[in-house]
Amino acid sequence: MSEYLYPINDILFSLRSVAKTQRLTPYIEDALDDDLLEAILGEAGKLAEQVIAPINASGDKQGSRVENGEVIEATGFKEAFKAYSEGGWIGLSGDPEYGGQGLPSCVATAVNEGVQSANLSFSLCPLLSLGAIEAISLHASDELKQQFLPKMLAGEWAGTMNLTEPTAGSDLAAIACKALPDGDVFRIKGQKIFITWGDHQMSDNIIHLVLARLPDAPEGVKGISLFIVPKFLLDDQGKPSERNDVHVVSVEHKMGIHASPTCVMSFGDNAGAVGYLVGNKNEGIKAMFTMMNNARQGVGLQGLAISERAYQQALEYAKERKQGLNAERTERAAIIEHPDVLRMLMMMKSQIDAMRSLIYVAAVENDLSHVATGEQKAQSAARTALYTPIVKGWITEQAQEVTSLAIQIHGGMGFIEETGVAQHARDARILPIYEGTNGIQAIDLIGRKLHSDNGAAMNALLLEIDNEIAQWRQFGLNEYADKVSVVLEQSKSATELCLAAMSKNAVLGTGLAYPYMMLMGYLIGAWLQVRALHAAKTESNFNEEQQDSWAHSVSFYCDHVLPRSLAYLYEIKFGQPTVDKLNKNVFNR
Amino acid sequence: MSEYLYPINDILFSLRSVAKTQRLTPYIEDALDDDLLEAILGEAGKLAEQVIAPINASGDKQGSRVENGEVIEATGFKEAFKAYSEGGWIGLSGDPEYGGQGLPSCVATAVNEGVQSANLSFSLCPLLSLGAIEAISLHASDELKQQFLPKMLAGEWAGTMNLTEPTAGSDLAAIACKALPDGDVFRIKGQKIFITWGDHQMSDNIIHLVLARLPDAPEGVKGISLFIVPKFLLDDQGKPSERNDVHVVSVEHKMGIHASPTCVMSFGDNAGAVGYLVGNKNEGIKAMFTMMNNARQGVGLQGLAISERAYQQALEYAKERKQGLNAERTERAAIIEHPDVLRMLMMMKSQIDAMRSLIYVAAVENDLSHVATGEQKAQSAARTALYTPIVKGWITEQAQEVTSLAIQIHGGMGFIEETGVAQHARDARILPIYEGTNGIQAIDLIGRKLHSDNGAAMNALLLEIDNEIAQWRQFGLNEYADKVSVVLEQSKSATELCLAAMSKNAVLGTGLAYPYMMLMGYLIGAWLQVRALHAAKTESNFNEEQQDSWAHSVSFYCDHVLPRSLAYLYEIKFGQPTVDKLNKNVFNR
Repeated sequence: MSEYLYPINDILFSLRSVAKTQRLTPYIEDALDDDLLEAILGEAGKLAEQVIAPINASGDKQGSRVENGEVIEATGFKEAFKAYSEGGWIGLSGDPEYGGQGLPSCVATAVNEGVQSANLSFSLCPLLSLGAIEAISLHASDELKQQFLPKMLAGEWAGTMNLTEPTAGSDLAAIACKALPDGDVFRIKGQKIFITWGDHQMSDNIIHLVLARLPDAPEGVKGISLFIVPKFLLDDQGKPSERNDVHVVSVEHKMGIHASPTCVMSFGDNAGAVGYLVGNKNEGIKAMFTMMNNARQGVGLQGLAISERAYQQALEYAKERKQGLNAERTERAAIIEHPDVLRMLMMMKSQIDAMRSLIYVAAVENDLSHVATGEQKAQSAARTALYTPIVKGWITEQAQEVTSLAIQIHGGMGFIEETGVAQHARDARILPIYEGTNGIQAIDLIGRKLHSDNGAAMNALLLEIDNEIAQWRQFGLNEYADKVSVVLEQSKSATELCLAAMSKNAVLGTGLAYPYMMLMGYLIGAWLQVRALHAAKTESNFNEEQQDSWAHSVSFYCDHVLPRSLAYLYEIKFGQPTVDKLNKNVFNR
Repeated sequence: MSEYLYPINDILFSLRSVAKTQRLTPYIEDALDDDLLEAILGEAGKLAEQVIAPINASGDKQGSRVENGEVIEATGFKEAFKAYSEGGWIGLSGDPEYGGQGLPSCVATAVNEGVQSANLSFSLCPLLSLGAIEAISLHASDELKQQFLPKMLAGEWAGTMNLTEPTAGSDLAAIACKALPDGDVFRIKGQKIFITWGDHQMSDNIIHLVLARLPDAPEGVKGISLFIVPKFLLDDQGKPSERNDVHVVSVEHKMGIHASPTCVMSFGDNAGAVGYLVGNKNEGIKAMFTMMNNARQGVGLQGLAISERAYQQALEYAKERKQGLNAERTERAAIIEHPDVLRMLMMMKSQIDAMRSLIYVAAVENDLSHVATGEQKAQSAARTALYTPIVKGWITEQAQEVTSLAIQIHGGMGFIEETGVAQHARDARILPIYEGTNGIQAIDLIGRKLHSDNGAAMNALLLEIDNEIAQWRQFGLNEYADKVSVVLEQSKSATELCLAAMSKNAVLGTGLAYPYMMLMGYLIGAWLQVRALHAAKTESNFNEEQQDSWAHSVSFYCDHVLPRSLAYLYEIKFGQPTVDKLNKNVFNR
């Protein structure tokens, strides 16, 4: 089993030199002091490496179980969660009014990268808590905020998100869970499935955020409301007391993230679970959507994190494992000496570099959409909305490839569970599915993001890339400028084609959605890779070896990863008629 | 859990109309009578569907275990193996002199597709037996053949292949297992790992084929000999009696194929396991290599088989699962109505069609390499050698994508083990690794197959594709001819580039091996897809719906799968310098 090392230098580089955290400075003054940032990430790295990573493999093996109606999580998780909470990590970017530390969320992203690399299953509990915290912060009354936020930000209480039902997955309009008015509160009745960390023993209370339908609600998504349903109701002092009528029914047996209990939850088997309305009636979906950028970018981050972990393990193995002879045929060589293994390792590394750049660029943009003012705020909000499906969809697709390559580099040992590398691929397989499948992300991109504003936000992005290419040329990076430029120009016409297809028929047009999302991912990956190289060469604090390492990563990306855009471009240019013509009967042969 | 349906019509179509089994007729007379073939495959299909498929999911859940030094396989496997053996399926293409039925091996391939789709874990036991049978048939003395082959062909005794050791995986030169002469026999001592079905209770004896080193043997691959080491030594009547000194130590805990016991085997803990030399001393590797085409094509077949199984399950689910509205926005729709789901299903189906065509084309060519005479025999041998790494490498890579898409179509349900679809992806993950990793396949293609004959066999293939494109044009399939022709022409220049790179430096040249293998896979896939469409349109026995279904598959392949060749072409044309420059230090950043 390999150790995990928090890649603090790569993360700091992505934050400062690629995502350019100084863009935040005008709005947050000195909240992102350099020394402070390094100190925070240094501590976060230690926690990830020393406390959270060591229980990853054991958690996978052990999983969780239901005993006497309660979920018992894997050994060591409770202690790790305590350390995590007491370190103040949950409240890092939370509202200071309720006990948060008010740091930009890009810092939380950098912290979470480590936690997620260390242990994806573990990381989901604070992640879902943060989702619940955000929903409450943005939409709940001050009274509810006062009651719940301080304990949640302190990590004493955890939170969950309850959306999915057996017949309502991607299609939330089909939600059937009921909320019946009962004085000032509501009684929630119904079943929810796929509830991540729906129950556990790691915190004193669990605050469920639940989507349900009022009796007089309109059909579809416009009739869904959001409720707080605590596991334990609060007494007069605000302390957990009486057990609410919500119970875990079972935990799923999954392909991966074994230590993260995925629960079937039953609300209201008896009198109905007491729920408190969050925000306005029938506006639950809207409340959910305001959280979507963070949650989806969070899953993209998981794709980066699990890829980094798998890469570290593969690299270590490739340096140790001897098979075959060296190039001079004089002695047995570590497999990292073989060109095809070097190719696989750089396929992993160059994609991870691109993924990380995008993660932090999107995180800083997301922060700007909150803290900036005026035009910048609007621009950043539009850009964040555009990045989100690409961050979630494209990065989690790359994570499938990177974690699979990590197995491949291990040869037969990769298929043996004790090696630990298969777990990363099994864990990663959920990422293209949850928080909106990647098909949904692609449709979100081509529809809600591209088509809805007639390409305005996308064209602003393409223009920014264009302008930056010009800067690279001034610096003499012509070779890279040329390579990205070719794909950029073709992406412009692909964008026009997608807009035209969506205008003509917004259902059939979605047949192009997936190739378009992937194309934009590879283009953005290349853009930010060259930006990283440009930074490594122009900023004063990088030595020749570091510049060299970036040059290898970026060159490899341009020659071995970016060319995939040609295939997606072809699909967009020529492939629509074949998708348009498909129907269920052609599979009857 | 979905039922498995043996796709007999698609298989017969691939055999007859794409692989053109009539090419065998001049050499085998009426051995492949149409009615007989359909009858055989009909029975094989029933066995796969009714006997072998039902124990697939239960076998995955149960796995195998070691008890009192013996492997206990999953419930129902022994009965299924008995049914399989008694049906005469193992000896289908075996030598009639020893009880085989002497049918072309392409028929056995068609039978095995069903067995492998039904239950990959189960199928490995007869597959490894066939490998052992082949090694004995081709290289052992008549006496050994008489002793072992009849029982093995009857399925009463199973066989295994013992190559890998902890320090000798891809690199067989490092084999350290010893064989000490002891009168007429040898005493084998050493440990072997990753031995598939190394022990079980399904047969009366297990015949291990073992690579080991004589005391005076030269170093490296030229000092390895091949031995028969039966689990039970034979008495004077040739019946299993005394226990030989070979024992299972443990079974591995793997990501997939749980029901296939992957054993650590210990030879000679006491006096040494009795072994019988097969063929000449120090020529064990040569003996192994003569079996390589069959074994590697067999793994390619597994890639097709598991893809077909996953596809069937995804298609069924897509027809049943309702989410979202139909195109007219009037009612809830099965997800197969959504363009992005249709796209994923056709991504699976069109690749499966191409994979199946290649499987049977390669199987018939392999048969010709054995039964044909003169020039045809030599040509078929060269072509088979060329196809083999592509069949193994390219098809098993496609299988990763297809089985992953099957999960994706299931959404959250795909990640739940009880759904059964995750098993296919977990099972499939071994395929790019065993029987020579796909990296090794790619290096075999660019080195031993392309470079060694200076491109002669490859150029013959490219010429055949060229000629066939001309035929398509005569028939009016110009659009398809154009699409394949573009990639063919570029593949010719890519072939020249690879030859030049290998001539310049046969180590560094392997940096291009993987993209080249994938490129040739996609080209061949497109060629055979259009050949299939051409056949469906020109042969009299296909109705309009069938022709239509093929047209959709082939069009989709040309517009959405074949374009990937552009990326691989780019890598070959422009990507070599970046791979050449890589070394282990660039990963130190």
